[in-house]
Amino acid sequence: MSLLTIGTVAFDAIETPFGKTDKIIGGSATYASLAASYFYDQIKIVAVVGDDFPQEDIKDFNDHNIDTEGLQIKQGEKSFFWSGKYHNDMNSRDTLITDLNVLADFDPIIPESYQDCEYLFLGNLTPQVQQTTIKRLKNRPKLIVMDTMNFWMDIAMDDLLETIKMVDVLTINDAEARQLSGEYSLVKAARKILTMGPKYLIIKKGEHGALLFHEDHIFSAPALPLAEVFDPTGAGDTFAGGFIGYMAKVGTVNFNNMKNAIIFGSALASFCVEKFGPEKIKNLSAEEINTRVQQFVNLSSFEI
Amino acid sequence: MSLLTIGTVAFDAIETPFGKTDKIIGGSATYASLAASYFYDQIKIVAVVGDDFPQEDIKDFNDHNIDTEGLQIKQGEKSFFWSGKYHNDMNSRDTLITDLNVLADFDPIIPESYQDCEYLFLGNLTPQVQQTTIKRLKNRPKLIVMDTMNFWMDIAMDDLLETIKMVDVLTINDAEARQLSGEYSLVKAARKILTMGPKYLIIKKGEHGALLFHEDHIFSAPALPLAEVFDPTGAGDTFAGGFIGYMAKVGTVNFNNMKNAIIFGSALASFCVEKFGPEKIKNLSAEEINTRVQQFVNLSSFEI
Repeated sequence: MSLLTIGTVAFDAIETPFGKTDKIIGGSATYASLAASYFYDQIKIVAVVGDDFPQEDIKDFNDHNIDTEGLQIKQGEKSFFWSGKYHNDMNSRDTLITDLNVLADFDPIIPESYQDCEYLFLGNLTPQVQQTTIKRLKNRPKLIVMDTMNFWMDIAMDDLLETIKMVDVLTINDAEARQLSGEYSLVKAARKILTMGPKYLIIKKGEHGALLFHEDHIFSAPALPLAEVFDPTGAGDTFAGGFIGYMAKVGTVNFNNMKNAIIFGSALASFCVEKFGPEKIKNLSAEEINTRVQQFVNLSSFEI
Repeated sequence: MSLLTIGTVAFDAIETPFGKTDKIIGGSATYASLAASYFYDQIKIVAVVGDDFPQEDIKDFNDHNIDTEGLQIKQGEKSFFWSGKYHNDMNSRDTLITDLNVLADFDPIIPESYQDCEYLFLGNLTPQVQQTTIKRLKNRPKLIVMDTMNFWMDIAMDDLLETIKMVDVLTINDAEARQLSGEYSLVKAARKILTMGPKYLIIKKGEHGALLFHEDHIFSAPALPLAEVFDPTGAGDTFAGGFIGYMAKVGTVNFNNMKNAIIFGSALASFCVEKFGPEKIKNLSAEEINTRVQQFVNLSSFEI
């Protein structure tokens, strides 16, 4: 039994009001698998990099019990590279460079040893590649969580609609929920999206937390109010990775477990933004995570 | 012992994507005192209207156990009138008409029978009038809650800073917290504002709920996700009125009681937006309120 994460493993160069980085490791599968590794020890990754990708970063994955057999290394090619600059409010950013490189014709090959996948996270990629991944698994995983973004709604809506039919949980932000549904009210947007395939919808609202919708149930999770957001890159992927990692740990798919999974995912995401890239989420202790989760409990609990 | 509410009692004409009203009753003291009346039966109001103000609306106040001895009726003058139009997202609005009328030289006269005031709500008005109200009370109330808005930060910042020094709880929205403090992070903004006088700060975030700050403690309250927001007018005043009404009911000022007061205030506000003006909050049953509060509990509770 394992948790399969597919997405990008890439280089990012990030500029925030606090400083800038050279090329550092990034990508949706990087953040998600690292986050999930704090809850589950059978993590497997499918992604593609070029021969410029450092061996030590692959070792980093393995040190987190992340199986990299499915990480394709294309000789003579370069890894996907993204460069962006955040504005002062940290809520918006400009993309400076997007070099697809190896990602341009990424074919998600699933190693035979990955066919025991029970939990599947589809990180942000073309819906076509996400769909192919599902189809290449001989057994339908117990839980499929899919992340996507407005970009695919703009250029590949048909593929996207076909893909979300096949998943259990969709994670998008509030603007994307509005775009996908054509409804301004998030309640109406959620009702509509829940008829499109997913049984659960998570609407990520950044500093305002997240909403989980399922049938007629709604859970509102707070975000931890932070004095400083150093670098928001990867926070959404970290959230999703923590979410599905926790679900794999508890092993039973239901609304109550998903509520807790959202809290653990939010806790991981709150660490992610404290340093550049995945630096902080590479080195967390169980105690740090539990203390942070307790902060979420204190933040939102009341007794009436 | 009583709860004194000072603010506007006025006429509004409202246009939303769902329809428009003629002149209907509105004003910060109207919404706040009606909301508070569901929790406490010694509510007193200080405000000013013209002789155009309908007797039946005064009777409405009295039917809610709201004492109107302090409601000045200026013969030959007109009540304050505001007209506004909400945009499709309901989060922004254009002011079409503001006729100050009687409000232009409002002198807040406190009847002798009001001097037993233990709980004071200063609704949105010039900081000068809010301050005068505090000074005219012979005994400092046990709890002073003040609402204000960006308009006074723009034109009367010095008066505002002097007034907030004198209060216990300040309620403002997130943009106003940023404007008042000059800090983008709400945590930093709150830290700064808590050095300006108030011991508690409530940051209202509309559809994203509210944050309560006190010393090093933070409470994050959810907002009820609503399919339709019919008319947001008065929601903030209703929230504040429910908040202080609940505090007057429980009688002990502390962080835990304030958390519950925020939930009750939010519940009242969620009713307010369901109909035009204060129509909905004029006719609520205890059962309706308790059911709504239970929805807030279900919405945000989790067990880790």
